[in-house]
Amino acid sequence: MNLTLKDIAQAMGVSVTTVSKALKDYKDISPETKTRIRAYTEKVNFRPNAHASFLRTQKTRLIGLVLPRLKHDFFNEITESIICYAASHDYKVIVLCSEESYEKEKSQIKELLQLNVDGIFISVAKNTNDYTHLKQVIKNNTPLILFDRTVKLVPSLQVVNDDFEAGFMATEHLIKQGCKKIVHLRGDLIPQISIDRFFGYKKALEKHNIPFKKELVTICSENTFEEGYKGVFNLIKKFPDVDGLFAITDLVAIGAMGAFKELGYQIPKDVAIIGYSNWLISSLITPKLSTIEQNGNKMGKQVMQSFLDLQNTDGEMATSKYQRLIIPSRLIPRTSSMKTTELL
Amino acid sequence: MNLTLKDIAQAMGVSVTTVSKALKDYKDISPETKTRIRAYTEKVNFRPNAHASFLRTQKTRLIGLVLPRLKHDFFNEITESIICYAASHDYKVIVLCSEESYEKEKSQIKELLQLNVDGIFISVAKNTNDYTHLKQVIKNNTPLILFDRTVKLVPSLQVVNDDFEAGFMATEHLIKQGCKKIVHLRGDLIPQISIDRFFGYKKALEKHNIPFKKELVTICSENTFEEGYKGVFNLIKKFPDVDGLFAITDLVAIGAMGAFKELGYQIPKDVAIIGYSNWLISSLITPKLSTIEQNGNKMGKQVMQSFLDLQNTDGEMATSKYQRLIIPSRLIPRTSSMKTTELL
Repeated sequence: MNLTLKDIAQAMGVSVTTVSKALKDYKDISPETKTRIRAYTEKVNFRPNAHASFLRTQKTRLIGLVLPRLKHDFFNEITESIICYAASHDYKVIVLCSEESYEKEKSQIKELLQLNVDGIFISVAKNTNDYTHLKQVIKNNTPLILFDRTVKLVPSLQVVNDDFEAGFMATEHLIKQGCKKIVHLRGDLIPQISIDRFFGYKKALEKHNIPFKKELVTICSENTFEEGYKGVFNLIKKFPDVDGLFAITDLVAIGAMGAFKELGYQIPKDVAIIGYSNWLISSLITPKLSTIEQNGNKMGKQVMQSFLDLQNTDGEMATSKYQRLIIPSRLIPRTSSMKTTELL
Repeated sequence: MNLTLKDIAQAMGVSVTTVSKALKDYKDISPETKTRIRAYTEKVNFRPNAHASFLRTQKTRLIGLVLPRLKHDFFNEITESIICYAASHDYKVIVLCSEESYEKEKSQIKELLQLNVDGIFISVAKNTNDYTHLKQVIKNNTPLILFDRTVKLVPSLQVVNDDFEAGFMATEHLIKQGCKKIVHLRGDLIPQISIDRFFGYKKALEKHNIPFKKELVTICSENTFEEGYKGVFNLIKKFPDVDGLFAITDLVAIGAMGAFKELGYQIPKDVAIIGYSNWLISSLITPKLSTIEQNGNKMGKQVMQSFLDLQNTDGEMATSKYQRLIIPSRLIPRTSSMKTTELL
């Protein structure tokens, strides 16, 4: 049985307000009274009830975090960053996993609203192309922040990597290493991140007067090792003279690297390879994989900071307009792409 | 503004009970009334309030999950498994990270109790050696389940890998490959998992009449790549003739492998290496790392299933006794340890 503030007040012969203020360290309560009340609440192991607190403040200090996957280095890093940063501001995080299902995502959002969370952070599932559930969050005046896999059609804060710039940077790096026939193992057609990285790739080719050939682009929709591996085997039949490869993520790049090795290509001499997102594994394999840093830690902090900023402004207004915050990308050149070393 | 059941009842000219029963599909409400009430609640976007539901049932359907780290393949897999399995039983999970701090862990447990979570799952921080906070959970009649990093002194359900068996299995595998001078890069002194794996190592040596030499054991308290790397450099000065190595986790083993390679040792010819926990990276590096499977998915499911089982029994009794559930280990032999191939 949990004691209430009223029980404590009665037992000590003071008002409920006095107990409440004493526990919150208000200045208009004398130090003696505070000490006396705290000693008693400690003794009876009194814990202020979170639900009573909610009924008073209408704040739950809970945040809902919806991710398409959890077993994923980048989302994992974002989650850690959000949870730790939230904790330091006295917020707790309910983590949900849509498992890349729009239906699950939709019902999870509904359930989070039922729980009266103070904010919802989401990276959408791959096949999400109806955004009513997200607009419902805004209608409910619950702060909504999209990150990484965002949706331009939703009028809310969106924290993203600069995927276009990243695709451009990776491809231009290969070109500067002397590559002229560059494969792109891209992601699925719908997600904006996958589109933007692809456009970055095209833009870099264009800038350097290398004709774009759609046959050199293969879709790896699941972003897996196996897709990278098979993708290269298929491409090489037609184009044995490819000399560069930019993959949508490191795991796909590592799969591709495995295939090239098996086919007797030397990396980076015959083919230079670069991935994206700097997974732990990328600096530990041989040759070390060049990549673009995707800073999950920074992104998580930015998401949480944006939420905190909303609390200090008129939340309702601030959440209902489209605003894009960009986390800068950074090239991490390693052995897998360094045909020349002069540039480093 | 959220509508209440009362608002709905008034608007439709029925009783609160009728609205509540209609929404829950009770049989004593006519299909017509149900349809009418549902259509209306859908139209006004009525969401039953989770806090009102709590006041009625005293159940929050929230679970608190406390992990020492989040950016960690194994804990990551457990988290995913618990969250998804919990969701399929209509539970949500608040994830907290103690960041290996006993102080944080203690206050997180207190806060979870304040939130009236229906259960707490925890893997303790490395330096946790006072268990009052955990005993407080039991005193509060909140189901408590420890997993992976457990504490024998706490009378609760504990889900563990068979770390002793795993250490034994890994070491015996090296012995069967012909290794006679086997290094153990162990974990810190306190955690039971680290002690048990070390005892497994000793037991395997003993069984095969190989004298135990404490100089061949080095503590890698942070379980990092760097510790494995440096550990080998230090050991090799004194014992250049080591021919086998068992590391507390794959990451340490991979660090060790890097050092051996640099020192000109051939793996597995000169030295056979085995890790523990089958990280993603271990099957992708060269040579592929032998390891012991640590099934985070199975462990997460077992933790959640144990919690569900408690709901069907007398929770109070069931939580206040020590009970150990073991997830079996499995040897995954790969190139890094296969001096002979006959055994596969």
